[in-house]
This record gives sequence, structure tokens and C-alpha cells, in this order.
Amino acid sequence: MKRFFCQTTNDNEILRGDEHSHLAYVLRAKAGEKVVLCPQDGYDYIYEITEIGKKETLLKKVDRLLNENEPRVHVTLFMSLLKGDKADLVVQKATELGISRIVPMMTRYVSVKPESAKTERYRRICTEAAKQCGRAVVPEIEEVANISEIGDRLADFDLIVFPYENEAERDLKQTLAQIGAVKSAAIIIGSEGGFSEEEVEALIKRNVTPVTLGPRILRAETACVAVTAVVMYELGEWRRR
Amino acid sequence: MKRFFCQTTNDNEILRGDEHSHLAYVLRAKAGEKVVLCPQDGYDYIYEITEIGKKETLLKKVDRLLNENEPRVHVTLFMSLLKGDKADLVVQKATELGISRIVPMMTRYVSVKPESAKTERYRRICTEAAKQCGRAVVPEIEEVANISEIGDRLADFDLIVFPYENEAERDLKQTLAQIGAVKSAAIIIGSEGGFSEEEVEALIKRNVTPVTLGPRILRAETACVAVTAVVMYELGEWRRR
Repeated sequence: MKRFFCQTTNDNEILRGDEHSHLAYVLRAKAGEKVVLCPQDGYDYIYEITEIGKKETLLKKVDRLLNENEPRVHVTLFMSLLKGDKADLVVQKATELGISRIVPMMTRYVSVKPESAKTERYRRICTEAAKQCGRAVVPEIEEVANISEIGDRLADFDLIVFPYENEAERDLKQTLAQIGAVKSAAIIIGSEGGFSEEEVEALIKRNVTPVTLGPRILRAETACVAVTAVVMYELGEWRRR
Repeated sequence: MKRFFCQTTNDNEILRGDEHSHLAYVLRAKAGEKVVLCPQDGYDYIYEITEIGKKETLLKKVDRLLNENEPRVHVTLFMSLLKGDKADLVVQKATELGISRIVPMMTRYVSVKPESAKTERYRRICTEAAKQCGRAVVPEIEEVANISEIGDRLADFDLIVFPYENEAERDLKQTLAQIGAVKSAAIIIGSEGGFSEEEVEALIKRNVTPVTLGPRILRAETACVAVTAVVMYELGEWRRR
């Protein structure tokens, strides 16, 4: 069923604009077919199409179901700014993998300007990916933050995963084996240029432990997707309920 | 250091054509600088540039080092054919993550023609990715196979990971927890349309056990990258040696 994110879920709702056009002219939906409205409260609201007019689609609520696709763990990705369309890829894939929030992050060795982060564009990509994979909530895309500003927020997370290419000993499996129940996690991924020593020291002072991802250096966007996948897997999010 | 895959590693070697041009005119390399030649035997051969001419670069061998970036486990990805540039993405990312071989695969619900698999193009992408992430070996890209042809090969693998969206019980973590030492693994990923019942039954007859990846349905290309990441992680390939 086609999904729409919305504000209200009254007994009768009306779709207009792009959502109406898409249903009426692209999908050629008919009265009697069903769609899902998601007010981002964790439930899917099932509506029946009662009428498709020229400029609007009329809907009648018929059911409310718990959405089973939202992860139980709340994962935030601090993603160093990436060149070109690499950030688009990360935003889409991280949404499918169950991320809750993405913070585009400036670091010393980021090679693009803060203005290159297209947060409105990322929000559109996020929304489309969330619809496509049946999520009840669209991940939040924050405005660009400097890595120096994120320190205070890190105390709020039960787990922080910080891959660093100069870390030779401690690996991610060790780190994840030692944690208990986790409600929230942060993943911090550097740019192609890596982190500066000062940035790493500042994070270590906040009790963040660097980990290696093994001998092969992953591209920044690959690390974002691969680490999000592994964290979700280890936290039990690749299981049916 | 710039890497080149090559056939021979004599004491003196000569680079011509694109490789010469790239070194001389793009990187503006100078005599005395070093490059790496990789004959795909697991070693990096270090050469010093002795002369850069108009049409060739002369090299002198100075060292041979064991390449530490090759995974110990040999993983084959059976990748259902994907639309457009999605296969390019999988080939690049799987190479970074340490894949050894990719088999583009026709299945019943693949929505593109076998000719759409650009194996020569994938080989170029693989080679570039292998250079970029410092691998000693370029993953092998096979010609397109039908899923009905791969059955006999599956007996050769110590582990087979087969995500299937209709599997409700068995998860990947259970499967991976029960295996011992693994030298070779296969990952079988379906197309956007999934697998047909006949295809699933034929695999189950070969003792392949379907697993769920959890409630969120991943796009096919996301599944290829995410499952490769998790398998490599679980098999110890995200550790330093």
C-alpha cells in the first residue's frame, strides 16, 4: 500500500497537490483502494479512498495498526560532510537500515564547504526511503554541526562507535561484546581525510573509544553504510519480532 | 603510493600507455618517487621511478612486502542483476569490504535482461576500487549465471548466507553463531522482486538455509553491501592482525 507522512489522522482526510496527483495520475488509484497515512506516532493508519476528484483525493479511516518496522534502538549517525552525491547515498541507505537521526558534521579535514550539505535535499531523500521501506518515522536530518560542538551531546548515548584508522588494537566486535542493553547509539564517521589528532583527543576525553575496522581502509560513505549495518545487526535489529 | 596491477615483476619494469600518462601528467611523479606493482600473488612489489620519458616510465625494484589487506576468508557474492548503476555501486563497495568474487545472477524476478550486466565495466570498477583500498588481488567478476546453474557450486562453500524475505524465524546471527572456522562463504542476494518459490525450494534442497534480515525490507543493492559488511565483520575481517 502507498504510504504518506502526514500531520493529522482524522476520520476523513483529503490529499491534495503532489500526493493527490501521484495517486490519481501516476498510480491511477481507484475508489475502494487503500493507502497508509503515517503521523510518525509509530502506527500505520489505513484509509480507504472514497473519491478521486480532479484536485483532491478523499479518504476514510478504516484501521490503525502498530508499525513493526521501526527499530527499538535509536541510532544517530554523525556523518562528516561528503563530496557530491555520496551523502545522498548514505542518507538513503542509512534510512533503510533503520537510522533515527543524521548529523552532517564539519571536521578539520572535510574537503567541502559547510554550504555543500544539502539538508533539505537529504530530508526529501530520507522521506522517500522511509516510505519505500515501510517505516513509521522519517529520520531526522539536523543542520550542519562542527565536530567541536557535538561533545556535550555524546554523554546521552549508551554506546558510541568511533572508527579511527590509526587505532590498531581495539576492534568493533570487542566493543560491542562488552555492552549490555542499549537504547541509543551514536556512530561517528570521518571524512576521506580522516580525523585530526586534536579531534581524536577531544573525543577520547569524552570517554569515546576509537576502534579499527580492519586493514582495508573504507571510503567514508562505505564506512557510514557498513558500520550502520553492523551496529543494527549487533543490536538485534536484523531479527523478526 | 600509487598501485598498478601487472603481470611481471622483473627487477626493471616499464610503464606505458595510460599508466605512464597518469603518473607523468596527472600525478606529475618525479624520478626517485616510489610506486607499487601488484602481480596478484599477495605481495606488494615496491619500485622506484628511475626515469620518466615522453612515452614511458622506467622502474627499478627495491622491495617486496606482504600485503596485509587481503581477507583470509574467500567470499563470493551471487548478486541478482540490478537496474542501472546499482550494480556499479555493489561492485565498488563489495571490493572495499573484501569480496573475492562476484557472480551476476539471473533469477525469475530479475527485471532486466542478462545483457544489461556490464561485466567488463564491473571489472574496471573492481580494479579501481582494489587499487584505491590497497588490495593485492582484484576480485573476480564472472559472466552472468542463471540461479539454476549455481546449485552444484554451493557444496564448495563452508558457509552460505541466503536472506529471504518470507523467512520469519531464523536470523543471520543464529546462523553465524553456529559455524566454526570458515575459509569460504557465499552470499546469495535476490532482486527487487525477490525469489520465486521454486528457486527457494531448489536452494533448500541443497541444504541452504534462508535467513531473515529483520522487519525492514532492504533494497537489493543495500542488502548486497550490508550483508557483505556483516559477514566480513562476523568472520573476523574487521580486526587488525
